[in-house]
Amino acid sequence: MREFTYIGKRVPRSDSLPKALGSARYVGDMVLPGMLYGAILRSPHAHARILSIATSQAERLPGVRAVITGNDTLKLKYGLFPRTRDQHLLAVDRVRYMGEEVAGVAATDEDIAHEALSLIKVEYEPLPAVFDAISAMKDGAPQLHEHAAKNIAWHTAVHFGNVNEGFRQSDYVRSESFKSDFISHCQMEPYAALASWDPAGKLDVWMPNMSPFTRRRALSNLLGIPTHLIRVHHCNIGGAFGGRSDVFPAEFVAAILSRKAGRPVRIVYTRQESLANTRMMHAAIFDIKIGIKRDGTIMARDTRVILEGGAYLSSGIMACTSPSTLDEGLYRSPNFKYEGFRIYTNKTPCSMHRNHPMNLGMGTDMVLDMLAEDIGMDPKEIRLRNAIRANETLPSSSVVTSCGLSDSIEKAAEMSGWKQKWGKLPRGKGIGMGSGVCISGFPLGMRLGSSAFVKLNEDGTASVLSGIVDNGQGNESMMVQITADELGVRMEDVVLVNGDTELTPQDPGTYSMTATSVSANAVRLAAQDARQQILDIASGMLEAPSQDLDLRDRKVLVSGSPGKAIPLEDVVRLSFLKGTPILGRGTYMPKPHSVNGWADWGTNKINGQHGPTYTFGTAVAEVEVDEETGKVKVTGFHLATDVGFAINPMAVEGQMESFAVMLLGQMFLEKHDWDEKGKLITGSLAGYKIPTALDAPAITSHIVESHDPDGPYGGKDAGISGTGGVMGAIANAIYDAVGVRIKGLPVTPEDILKALRQGKGKG
Amino acid sequence: MREFTYIGKRVPRSDSLPKALGSARYVGDMVLPGMLYGAILRSPHAHARILSIATSQAERLPGVRAVITGNDTLKLKYGLFPRTRDQHLLAVDRVRYMGEEVAGVAATDEDIAHEALSLIKVEYEPLPAVFDAISAMKDGAPQLHEHAAKNIAWHTAVHFGNVNEGFRQSDYVRSESFKSDFISHCQMEPYAALASWDPAGKLDVWMPNMSPFTRRRALSNLLGIPTHLIRVHHCNIGGAFGGRSDVFPAEFVAAILSRKAGRPVRIVYTRQESLANTRMMHAAIFDIKIGIKRDGTIMARDTRVILEGGAYLSSGIMACTSPSTLDEGLYRSPNFKYEGFRIYTNKTPCSMHRNHPMNLGMGTDMVLDMLAEDIGMDPKEIRLRNAIRANETLPSSSVVTSCGLSDSIEKAAEMSGWKQKWGKLPRGKGIGMGSGVCISGFPLGMRLGSSAFVKLNEDGTASVLSGIVDNGQGNESMMVQITADELGVRMEDVVLVNGDTELTPQDPGTYSMTATSVSANAVRLAAQDARQQILDIASGMLEAPSQDLDLRDRKVLVSGSPGKAIPLEDVVRLSFLKGTPILGRGTYMPKPHSVNGWADWGTNKINGQHGPTYTFGTAVAEVEVDEETGKVKVTGFHLATDVGFAINPMAVEGQMESFAVMLLGQMFLEKHDWDEKGKLITGSLAGYKIPTALDAPAITSHIVESHDPDGPYGGKDAGISGTGGVMGAIANAIYDAVGVRIKGLPVTPEDILKALRQGKGKG
Repeated sequence: MREFTYIGKRVPRSDSLPKALGSARYVGDMVLPGMLYGAILRSPHAHARILSIATSQAERLPGVRAVITGNDTLKLKYGLFPRTRDQHLLAVDRVRYMGEEVAGVAATDEDIAHEALSLIKVEYEPLPAVFDAISAMKDGAPQLHEHAAKNIAWHTAVHFGNVNEGFRQSDYVRSESFKSDFISHCQMEPYAALASWDPAGKLDVWMPNMSPFTRRRALSNLLGIPTHLIRVHHCNIGGAFGGRSDVFPAEFVAAILSRKAGRPVRIVYTRQESLANTRMMHAAIFDIKIGIKRDGTIMARDTRVILEGGAYLSSGIMACTSPSTLDEGLYRSPNFKYEGFRIYTNKTPCSMHRNHPMNLGMGTDMVLDMLAEDIGMDPKEIRLRNAIRANETLPSSSVVTSCGLSDSIEKAAEMSGWKQKWGKLPRGKGIGMGSGVCISGFPLGMRLGSSAFVKLNEDGTASVLSGIVDNGQGNESMMVQITADELGVRMEDVVLVNGDTELTPQDPGTYSMTATSVSANAVRLAAQDARQQILDIASGMLEAPSQDLDLRDRKVLVSGSPGKAIPLEDVVRLSFLKGTPILGRGTYMPKPHSVNGWADWGTNKINGQHGPTYTFGTAVAEVEVDEETGKVKVTGFHLATDVGFAINPMAVEGQMESFAVMLLGQMFLEKHDWDEKGKLITGSLAGYKIPTALDAPAITSHIVESHDPDGPYGGKDAGISGTGGVMGAIANAIYDAVGVRIKGLPVTPEDILKALRQGKGKG
Repeated sequence: MREFTYIGKRVPRSDSLPKALGSARYVGDMVLPGMLYGAILRSPHAHARILSIATSQAERLPGVRAVITGNDTLKLKYGLFPRTRDQHLLAVDRVRYMGEEVAGVAATDEDIAHEALSLIKVEYEPLPAVFDAISAMKDGAPQLHEHAAKNIAWHTAVHFGNVNEGFRQSDYVRSESFKSDFISHCQMEPYAALASWDPAGKLDVWMPNMSPFTRRRALSNLLGIPTHLIRVHHCNIGGAFGGRSDVFPAEFVAAILSRKAGRPVRIVYTRQESLANTRMMHAAIFDIKIGIKRDGTIMARDTRVILEGGAYLSSGIMACTSPSTLDEGLYRSPNFKYEGFRIYTNKTPCSMHRNHPMNLGMGTDMVLDMLAEDIGMDPKEIRLRNAIRANETLPSSSVVTSCGLSDSIEKAAEMSGWKQKWGKLPRGKGIGMGSGVCISGFPLGMRLGSSAFVKLNEDGTASVLSGIVDNGQGNESMMVQITADELGVRMEDVVLVNGDTELTPQDPGTYSMTATSVSANAVRLAAQDARQQILDIASGMLEAPSQDLDLRDRKVLVSGSPGKAIPLEDVVRLSFLKGTPILGRGTYMPKPHSVNGWADWGTNKINGQHGPTYTFGTAVAEVEVDEETGKVKVTGFHLATDVGFAINPMAVEGQMESFAVMLLGQMFLEKHDWDEKGKLITGSLAGYKIPTALDAPAITSHIVESHDPDGPYGGKDAGISGTGGVMGAIANAIYDAVGVRIKGLPVTPEDILKALRQGKGKG
């Protein structure tokens, strides 16, 4: 590979300065001429029929410019797939969770808007509600949606080989059950939307989101106007973590209010609304059964998952199906069965959460450790024996093109001093291991691929146009790095225009780590197209074949003859004069490697390629458990992650380490509670605790590079994949320390004490 | 030529609805988060040295966030060419006209900003000033700029053939002198600028301007930051007429205030400032000498022009040189001499004004009529005899590739009933003829050509990215028309993104009618590139060679087999799935047809091609003169203009008719006056009168189509060119009515009465 100035180097991000200086604007900061302030009236019932809504009093309040209800909408339901549309973004006849959107108001200031809400009179007929998945699946349980018998919103069933036969052939079989709770993504930016509907018919929208093009498509359906009349603008985004995928009522309501009032309308959610009325991660019950031979070889795996997802499906399909996709991609099993149920309850709708489900990963890693103990094998060895390897075809026929899993296991062990520590630490101290896997881009997102433009300015600087968005992971900077190196200019010479449906070419959005494997490839191709155009013109100027030319330091150089060089600026100026300005164009559409083409979760088509490529990693955790208090202190993380190639190692490490700390919250702190009426009582950052930098243990990180054949420069992801192994690592470390197995999350000191008292624990 | 749905048809403009509804936003409407209000302190002296500026009191006023003077700038001078940089956009040591910019203030509201101005103490040493061109050229006159002896800012000298010999060979020679006054462009939008300088170093600017890319270049020099860190945004523009070419102090001051205050700053000029402190059209003295043979053939022309241009050069070079360029392109002369002087005086700087100089055209048309009278020839015949024709090479070696001048003379005569009316109307009524010429694009503007992108959305709609701006003439709609027809979609299916230096490819700007001949060609090529990509994919789907395919009604059709067709949407979706989305790219750089390549006014290189192509036209005016009051009433205009091909006849007629009415103002109403101290006393629309719709006479318009070989679909301009003949036509009509020759503009009833009293006039 060519020697680069930025690609593969630890470079400061191009977007960090305005954010560090506080000059970066978020949607909540924006104002437009004549802008109104919007607010949303929410349901006080967990489940109810709406009998009537009276808005006239609110409309009469001075300063109120528009009041809307479901009757101002087309009454279409929103959902990720035509067959899963189940949510009115403004309630029409019924509400299914407390806080559901019932009416919207736009006024000249926020106080008036909220006063107007209090003047809207809604008549409800309360309906029986259900607040847990098991009850919801029982006969006679209150049913949330006509189409979903027993409140089963989605069901995924996968069976490869013959698991019964596999378990018969096994020498040891373990079957365990695990529980995990609802958690919030807790993006630091409160959710906000700004909509400006020009009377001439053009709708401009700003909101933090993971895929402007997907939003545009959905809004076009819901509002009944063609996509090109909707412009989803680029925004700075204060975090997403999988929770910014859906169209939310905020932008839908703001748009309709704007159309009615004839003025721009901005809605900024309170922290309570951001927690209770956007998305959560599913609560889950995992039943995991694994059988192995005496030598540690896995013979069969049978997993059953019940996901409680709240009132609407959202991206529940991915949450319900991805466990099987990821599970088969981590520890090899000739016989593989998976069943997932996604259940409706009268609570906040749940969506994906990062590379969901780390909690299933934890269970799998724990069962694997139990089996290793049964046969007296080092947990590291049992993982190596069963670890998926490069060019392996999975049961679903999905092909793993590059794989650094085994390397990551070895590296994490080496970094942590596993050999000296595991099983040898004094009581109260422990070490544990867990691995993780993810896909880079999921079949759905691939539908339209990604494209980019690169245009050179007359002074040799460049603009890149890409549809990519940046949720904080460094995507924008990555595009600038790549363009700068391909053109031989400085990063500060490159301006990125991105994530705007009107200005930039199509991009799938930053779901499932597509940014590197798909979007960055498009930018690379566009930059290389521009590069070639430059070299072709320069070859005439330098009287040298273009293949002998190189671009560096804003110069075109002739390889081998150091003296011979011309400024890039001169080449670009000539290109204009010749009437052939440098305009690069690039498109990348990944090809499925499976003989069955792409899998399609939306239709339950499991046979096929589940993602362009897979990423892996292993985490080792070290803990100290205080047997007096039950308090667990994580004293160290050792992370080794296969990202193919690190385009910016600093950004990759940032992802690995921040995700590891985020998972500490899921492991020990984060949990939502509702009262018996279905009211969320943890709707603030006082009631809902998340880890801070102070909770972070010492972390050592290592990047495994497996050089993906399709990825840009071999890259495929920015390191969250394998970091998911952190939770299994902690759980196994706790067992190593005090002989207690964690089976419910979050785990509290009380849980530990209780388990110890029940006589469990190392003896 | 292919049959089109929109091109060549009378279609409503794509940009008219928001403007009609009042929802279109102009810079003065814009707000940004934390925006401050800027104001400018102006010189109370016509000419003075600045001894000191004390700002501390203003800085202490609560609400004031920044105060700047010339010391906060790099003290670089602005000018269109490196060698003509003469203006500090914020005075450094000296002011040269009353109202020149001395300091800037940014505050939390406009009142505070203006109060702060009153607290800035400036110490001046007044200098002698000069207020007319003739005095300014005298020895010992106050000198405005060190580099310009006798205050001659620019001098153009052109001599082809031998005029003395030519006059010797002539049977009749006439030599006359004409005067015309300062006039304002009077754009309805007051000038405004909004600048937001991010602490991280990025500068965003909004202002009504004719060329974002030229502004960006100039601002980058003046502010000392690279071009790509400056983004000039698209704006709606409330008129330009040649008066929005320069960088103005508004954006320069707003930018520096924004950098200092760390917040966006908006400056909106008052009407007084828009009139007194932007640009005016030069006052001029024209000496015109023409010699002809007895048969009416022109043998020699000698023209001398003195342009009074105020304190700074601005686009005075074009104003000084273009008369020769245009003159040689209208009435043929083997011997041609032209001399132009552009003079500094202590008044408002002057720039181009539409296809300046119509007033010279008027003089030429009048002298030609006098000569026709001398030889007893119909003015129409003498024009036809000397009219430039297609494929003619002009004295400067510039080639006229298409020419409808003779046709326009014939047509205007026919429309007006010239044969029956000229010389035959009762006393007090008269008819007259005048012709005009213009270039489409001037050599300078061509430097970088124009490029465009066309991208197809998944639903078969399209976005066009073009650098073009629209000053009101319909450029934006033209790009949409062309794209829609090339792609076979509806105009409402096309979204235009234009005139933004960060988003769109390079464009020269809408100087000298480049929009059609250059920019529209780039959009045509980009759309045709996209079209070809569509046809190539469709040819596989329809199993027909792409050359047999056509695009219409959002379908791809097979010529000859009506049944065979597929929706465009399907082709576009497939293009995405194949990983080859439709991304069209087009660049147009006109080629000079002259053997000497491009002329270059900036270096006085006159030999060469003066514009990609020439446009022509003829106007006939009918008048009634009241000999009691001296009042002249224009009763009718008959306009015939060669635009090559009318892409939107409605837009072309709009240009022809509005310009004809605008020239009524120049002819009869518009005039600026200064007091003896150099203060503009006509700085309001009360004091400075312009014609309104009520002043418009009956107008009949005819579009002559000469089908330019290089122009898009044969088009080259939108009809202002020949309309310049209106003034000569009116003047000649007045002579036909009452035998009086107008030699000074504007002409008042008093002038007419005076001339009549001096015994002149038909008898």
